[in-house]
Amino acid sequence: MSASASPVSSSGPSGEGAVDRVSALRGRLERARAATLEAGLDALLVTPGPDLRYLTGYDAVTLERLTCLVVRAYDEPLVVVPQLERAAALASPIGSLGLGVATWQETDDPYAIVAATVPGANRVAVDDRMWAVKALEFRRALPNAEQEAAGVVLRELRMRKDAPEVAALRAAGAAIDRVHARVGEWLRAGRTEREVARDIVDAILAEGHVRADFAIVASGPNGASPHHEVSDRVISPGDPVVVDIGGTTEEGYCSDSTRTYAVGEPPADFLAYYGALQAAQEAACAAASPGMPCEEVDRAAREVLEEAGWGEKFIHRTGHGIGLETHEDPYIVAGNLQLLEPGMAFSVEPGVYVEGRHGARIEDIVVCTADGAERLNARPRDLVVLDA
Amino acid sequence: MSASASPVSSSGPSGEGAVDRVSALRGRLERARAATLEAGLDALLVTPGPDLRYLTGYDAVTLERLTCLVVRAYDEPLVVVPQLERAAALASPIGSLGLGVATWQETDDPYAIVAATVPGANRVAVDDRMWAVKALEFRRALPNAEQEAAGVVLRELRMRKDAPEVAALRAAGAAIDRVHARVGEWLRAGRTEREVARDIVDAILAEGHVRADFAIVASGPNGASPHHEVSDRVISPGDPVVVDIGGTTEEGYCSDSTRTYAVGEPPADFLAYYGALQAAQEAACAAASPGMPCEEVDRAAREVLEEAGWGEKFIHRTGHGIGLETHEDPYIVAGNLQLLEPGMAFSVEPGVYVEGRHGARIEDIVVCTADGAERLNARPRDLVVLDA
Repeated sequence: MSASASPVSSSGPSGEGAVDRVSALRGRLERARAATLEAGLDALLVTPGPDLRYLTGYDAVTLERLTCLVVRAYDEPLVVVPQLERAAALASPIGSLGLGVATWQETDDPYAIVAATVPGANRVAVDDRMWAVKALEFRRALPNAEQEAAGVVLRELRMRKDAPEVAALRAAGAAIDRVHARVGEWLRAGRTEREVARDIVDAILAEGHVRADFAIVASGPNGASPHHEVSDRVISPGDPVVVDIGGTTEEGYCSDSTRTYAVGEPPADFLAYYGALQAAQEAACAAASPGMPCEEVDRAAREVLEEAGWGEKFIHRTGHGIGLETHEDPYIVAGNLQLLEPGMAFSVEPGVYVEGRHGARIEDIVVCTADGAERLNARPRDLVVLDA
Repeated sequence: MSASASPVSSSGPSGEGAVDRVSALRGRLERARAATLEAGLDALLVTPGPDLRYLTGYDAVTLERLTCLVVRAYDEPLVVVPQLERAAALASPIGSLGLGVATWQETDDPYAIVAATVPGANRVAVDDRMWAVKALEFRRALPNAEQEAAGVVLRELRMRKDAPEVAALRAAGAAIDRVHARVGEWLRAGRTEREVARDIVDAILAEGHVRADFAIVASGPNGASPHHEVSDRVISPGDPVVVDIGGTTEEGYCSDSTRTYAVGEPPADFLAYYGALQAAQEAACAAASPGMPCEEVDRAAREVLEEAGWGEKFIHRTGHGIGLETHEDPYIVAGNLQLLEPGMAFSVEPGVYVEGRHGARIEDIVVCTADGAERLNARPRDLVVLDA
């Protein structure tokens, strides 16, 4: 056996909050049904993952045994679960939602059971993160149904956070801010990146997350790689250090924030760009307001760095949406014409990377409001110079 | 940013072991190529996950940006990676394997880049765990290629562990045994399941794992649900408690072992079946030898419980394969005619579940050898009665 999504996950909520939650979930399921119909689809097939959690509150682990929510354009939604998972499914909000729950036994064909719930389907969508092997089984079980990615439908819903979701992201942002506030306790010359990252992981768990998703500590030349994680490199006096950290809260929402530190006085060729980076991050946050295309937010950051002569060293997009996943729509990247709307939440994280030397990145999560961007991370963005 | 597979993962190996490792990986890639040809496929498309790690040693995180190994029937394998991940890919064994590495930029179409590496392909296989949205993108980029699940090819390789893999599983088994040896420190009346599980998670990490994957503590009536995880239930004197725990080691191999404990003297209706369960687990381990169909191992456990009158309370298959994933082929279940061979590793974990009362499960990982099953878990299987 082994079926935990997180090693020590919590039980669901109860009491009045649970009633609100069930009503929020009912609203999402109904909007998903309407969007399915509107898209000309017969059904969405949703296996464990962020889409299932968004629609039903069920934080099921992804296993080879099929668990599947069927959102039907012309009928009530229902859930197909293995016998072994029935109790867990009913203990989740699914038990309060009044959904039909069909159960399959170890030797049944669960794909055929799902197929029978959408007789004559011509077009179905599978959740974006569904295992390909399951999508291929659905192709076998529904040979006449064209298959598409459900993200086209679901991202339109998930991209627009409701008030409880924004509150959950705000709590996640405050939690990771508390970790950044303590980085000076652990980051100093003579320690390895890995040692520092272990302390940060402990703090992520201690400060309001149920899971530490990543703890990037990129010192000196390692800072020049945007996706460097950690290494056994010993931090030296004068090193700039990129610290990019995040976790997941009990409600399932993610944090993600980067600050760049210096362990003692940093070199002059680092200070040469840090100010421009900070201005670029400010400019992108200022540009994030309703009606602005995502690519313009990217543009705003890029222009500042280009004008300062560092444009070629900013080698990635400016940001990614965040919610039940660390990376989701909307992406803040050239070519994305999606217009920002209140409730959209995403990272603003320009960076400068100088190969062989060092790098810097400043990242806040922001949520678009009627008045502009609300930053969910509040730690100072000036370079933090620590004692070496 | 955020790209860690595990928050504080280790760097790769170096020195002589690395040379052996590269040669093992070359052998796997060549066997995969031969099997691809044999299966009438033009290519396997393998995105981050256990298949990619098995074939290349690259422990890449699964992101929306496409990273893809292309195993070609008629040509050398190659890897397509985002610019941002290039350094990480080359720092993995991929850098030593001499694979071609094609890089794509933020605004390129990476699916078209992969498609161009298999011109005229008629049949391709996608890794089983590939996100459906990526498999659908490959369908768009390769409109004339029939799509299948690569598991058909790769499970034949991954199911047969080589000596270093068996050694890695043996180390994982010893690590989780050290945790079970300490359960008495934490499991007692008056504590909640969640409190006990938190201590176990800490110990899993302290005892040779880089990740705690699950820590099931199912006390009293919660033990009657095979997939119960943890709850805030306070453990009472006399409770039987199922403790099913596992993690992942630095090498990527998984542990998974269950023991059932009693906190003080358990009730008579629990003792009524525990002995039969223990005999069933012994019988299944004894049945596991080369040439035996998987379903016969399941049958061996089931028959003992049926004869003792508890067959209806054993409501799941007897086991699952284990390796780079906690659940993989071969499955020890009715209907699986796969014959056991040396190197196959799997769990043997019969259970008895009495709704409203309690349950019990005993689980070892075993590896099939020429002489029969070698158990990789060695903790006593007798009921462990702890002080209440």
